[in-house]
Amino acid sequence: MAEKITPRSQDYSQWYIDIVNRAGLAENSDVRGCMVIKPHGYAIWEKMQGALDRMFKDTGHVNAYFPIFIPKSFLAKEEEMAEGFAKECAVVTHHRLKAVPGQGLIVDPDSKLEEELIIRPTSETIIWNSYRNWVQSYRDLPLLINQWANVVRWEMRTRLFLRTAEFLWQEGHTAHATQEEAEAEARQILEVYRRFAEEWMAMPVLTGPKTDGQKFPGAIYTLCIEAMMQDRRALQAGTSHFLGQNFARAFDVKFQNQAGQLEHAWATSWGVSTRLVGGLIMTHSDDQGLVLPPRLAPIHVVIVPIFRKPEEKTAVLEAAATLAAGIRNVDFGNWLNHEPIGVTVDDREQYQPGYKFNEWELRGVPVRVELGPKDLQKKACVLARRDLPGKEAKQMDVPLDTAARRIADMLKTMQNALLERARKWCDESSYEVNSYDEFKKKIEEPGGFFWAHWDGTRETEDRIAAETKATIRVIPSNRRPEQGKCMVTGRPSAGRVVFAKAY
Amino acid sequence: MAEKITPRSQDYSQWYIDIVNRAGLAENSDVRGCMVIKPHGYAIWEKMQGALDRMFKDTGHVNAYFPIFIPKSFLAKEEEMAEGFAKECAVVTHHRLKAVPGQGLIVDPDSKLEEELIIRPTSETIIWNSYRNWVQSYRDLPLLINQWANVVRWEMRTRLFLRTAEFLWQEGHTAHATQEEAEAEARQILEVYRRFAEEWMAMPVLTGPKTDGQKFPGAIYTLCIEAMMQDRRALQAGTSHFLGQNFARAFDVKFQNQAGQLEHAWATSWGVSTRLVGGLIMTHSDDQGLVLPPRLAPIHVVIVPIFRKPEEKTAVLEAAATLAAGIRNVDFGNWLNHEPIGVTVDDREQYQPGYKFNEWELRGVPVRVELGPKDLQKKACVLARRDLPGKEAKQMDVPLDTAARRIADMLKTMQNALLERARKWCDESSYEVNSYDEFKKKIEEPGGFFWAHWDGTRETEDRIAAETKATIRVIPSNRRPEQGKCMVTGRPSAGRVVFAKAY
Repeated sequence: MAEKITPRSQDYSQWYIDIVNRAGLAENSDVRGCMVIKPHGYAIWEKMQGALDRMFKDTGHVNAYFPIFIPKSFLAKEEEMAEGFAKECAVVTHHRLKAVPGQGLIVDPDSKLEEELIIRPTSETIIWNSYRNWVQSYRDLPLLINQWANVVRWEMRTRLFLRTAEFLWQEGHTAHATQEEAEAEARQILEVYRRFAEEWMAMPVLTGPKTDGQKFPGAIYTLCIEAMMQDRRALQAGTSHFLGQNFARAFDVKFQNQAGQLEHAWATSWGVSTRLVGGLIMTHSDDQGLVLPPRLAPIHVVIVPIFRKPEEKTAVLEAAATLAAGIRNVDFGNWLNHEPIGVTVDDREQYQPGYKFNEWELRGVPVRVELGPKDLQKKACVLARRDLPGKEAKQMDVPLDTAARRIADMLKTMQNALLERARKWCDESSYEVNSYDEFKKKIEEPGGFFWAHWDGTRETEDRIAAETKATIRVIPSNRRPEQGKCMVTGRPSAGRVVFAKAY
Repeated sequence: MAEKITPRSQDYSQWYIDIVNRAGLAENSDVRGCMVIKPHGYAIWEKMQGALDRMFKDTGHVNAYFPIFIPKSFLAKEEEMAEGFAKECAVVTHHRLKAVPGQGLIVDPDSKLEEELIIRPTSETIIWNSYRNWVQSYRDLPLLINQWANVVRWEMRTRLFLRTAEFLWQEGHTAHATQEEAEAEARQILEVYRRFAEEWMAMPVLTGPKTDGQKFPGAIYTLCIEAMMQDRRALQAGTSHFLGQNFARAFDVKFQNQAGQLEHAWATSWGVSTRLVGGLIMTHSDDQGLVLPPRLAPIHVVIVPIFRKPEEKTAVLEAAATLAAGIRNVDFGNWLNHEPIGVTVDDREQYQPGYKFNEWELRGVPVRVELGPKDLQKKACVLARRDLPGKEAKQMDVPLDTAARRIADMLKTMQNALLERARKWCDESSYEVNSYDEFKKKIEEPGGFFWAHWDGTRETEDRIAAETKATIRVIPSNRRPEQGKCMVTGRPSAGRVVFAKAY
């Protein structure tokens, strides 16, 4: 094995980089700000896609695909959107290269485009431009469309998965006949995101609207799920926007309502991205490597056969194959999104068992089975759960004939345990604070989620951000009504909002 | 319903456009050459992706994701690739817009990139640039990686699905320790493509190498699957390239072989794209609309309940729901890639049954079930198979208690029948010709696949293309050895090659 992973206590940022690199999840490419998602990282994203796609379809959505290019004039049509994205977009200006002796390949000046094209940073404009032709009557509504795509935002400071110039995501874009229906859609998707985060990623989240200062450019309001990482910083993990009639007006999308009048359609948009892979890592992993919640693990179980002599090898490999088949026979149904469970028998002979244990730990496989001649004599095996430390992780002498069932139980127990552990971490690192002095001190050390009163003004929000680098992450849905005073200005407040430093 | 579809006999090109538009598969966008893939078209592509992805994984491949941007200098490193793609690429030159009073949004000249970026037309260069760091020893090989992605080639004349500036595809990029292994991989993938085309798309194909004149830029040779459309033109449907050590040399990818010597790695690349959706349409569809092979249909069965009175409605809808549940209970296993069968009960009351029949025919649903009060009295229903004409399509008085089984059989029968019909069409439109005069005449009318002798030179190939617009589609794997004379030059030839006009 290569050098050790930097411990979290020593340098959290370096620990994250080490995990991403050493577990084979992603790496920086030679293109500024763009990452290569390596097979193990992409397999996790595929599991996420599978579960989310099923949830979208179960709520009546369909997939489609719109062009990657957005004419510059489209972006200009929605003012806030232009302002929000103009500063960070990749601009296509030409459509040809040519070879020039002495200069090599150069951009052919004769191929200049009449109108520049932007690589989509998000697709509201190009999609609503299409919707204009799709919607005539209220009978054509709602449109409930999602797209899986790559997008580009020219970020200056990037971090693998969390912030990259190109990233993968899904973006839902819906059109509705009424405001009520569109708002219900935005809330429905927020709930899909919450369930996905908690039930699949085992990552507890706060839900609720963003402040006006933090909302999406072009939205009336933005709902979000907000998670806490192990360093007590917040991660915005998904957003669902109620867009009102802004895009329908900008792109002239009108329909005849039931009363026969022409009306602009109502819109939502919503998305989660490969950023979730970063959130997954920072929620569960440890100093030994990746820890994956079983429902999103590409490989769930690794069986490490242990043997020295040839006759041991035959018997042990045979038992391993039988056990693997037994595990594959367990029906997990929708708990694994109807996909087969991933079981690997690591029979590589060039490596010692200890090396293999470390490698599979590093890659985050939830359950390891150790199976040697002594176990076989007892018709048993040893199970080890990835998320528990040392001896606690192990179940010795598990009878082979019930091992498949025990492993299935262990996977489900582990999934729940990860959520509970993460929830405990989030609860323990959340504080109600009432004075700005206390806030300024605690936001530095230990950090966390700070429930505090705020006077509702952009001015105060900006001042706090400037002075402490903390932002309002969410106006939490589950806050209790409580008359209070803004911790900074003393002005009245109707309930606490949640501040944190964020990724 | 809107106006009729243009009949194939009247205008084949317009028929194709009508099908794509009216069945809701795709449309042109306002971005030159780029299409919007609408939900029904995208659902077909998703079915294709699902089946292919399973086949790739079953043959040991994994997915990953590489950046969309390719630095200009990367393209320049492989000469043939630069030549092949430089003339049709989207070039990113800037990374910011700015608002200027009076001019609106303009490209910020201060944001000019030091090195221009090309939107990937294909990813060999960026991927082999990464592989350099992934490969040190023969133990790191093979790399068997696939990516699902969008690519851009600035085509001047575009046609929905068949040729678009942006399209979706998969591209496999593998690295091997030996030439033999790489060549075996290229052949293995060709066989995956052949099986997918024939067993899933019900589209028979010829397989074999392209001529040097038609191979991929940078390849030693290109293998392909080649299908015949209903207008007797050829469609290149998938390619698998043996790249030798060209990209390893261009990007300095070396490994230590078992003998301890440094060697360049051996490469393949291979891809199929959304073009396949166009091929699917042009292989099976008819003047009533889309015809889909059941294994790739997003919806397999539509049940149209027929009723007038309220008491009829209750009974008919109940029977329809029971039948739908019965069909969903049939286990199709890997015949449907372990996905659930798609069954819809069309209970919309604003439309008449006849309207619904036409609509579902247009959208290509393989089996229609008609279920009315009279059928119910007989405890029966009517089945209609999409690919057969008139009365032949119908099975009357099918007992409800065996209908699910009968429908399952009908789907499998239809899948086979479509393949057989297409194969017959291809056979009947294939000719051996021995004289260039006959060739020139027949290639115009009726058209088809022409098996002819060719002297093996680029010169003759180019001359034939210039004079007839026909190209050599493939050197077919299944040709018999036959000494002959080139139909143009009379020079010797060891076997026939297949000429056709192509999309």
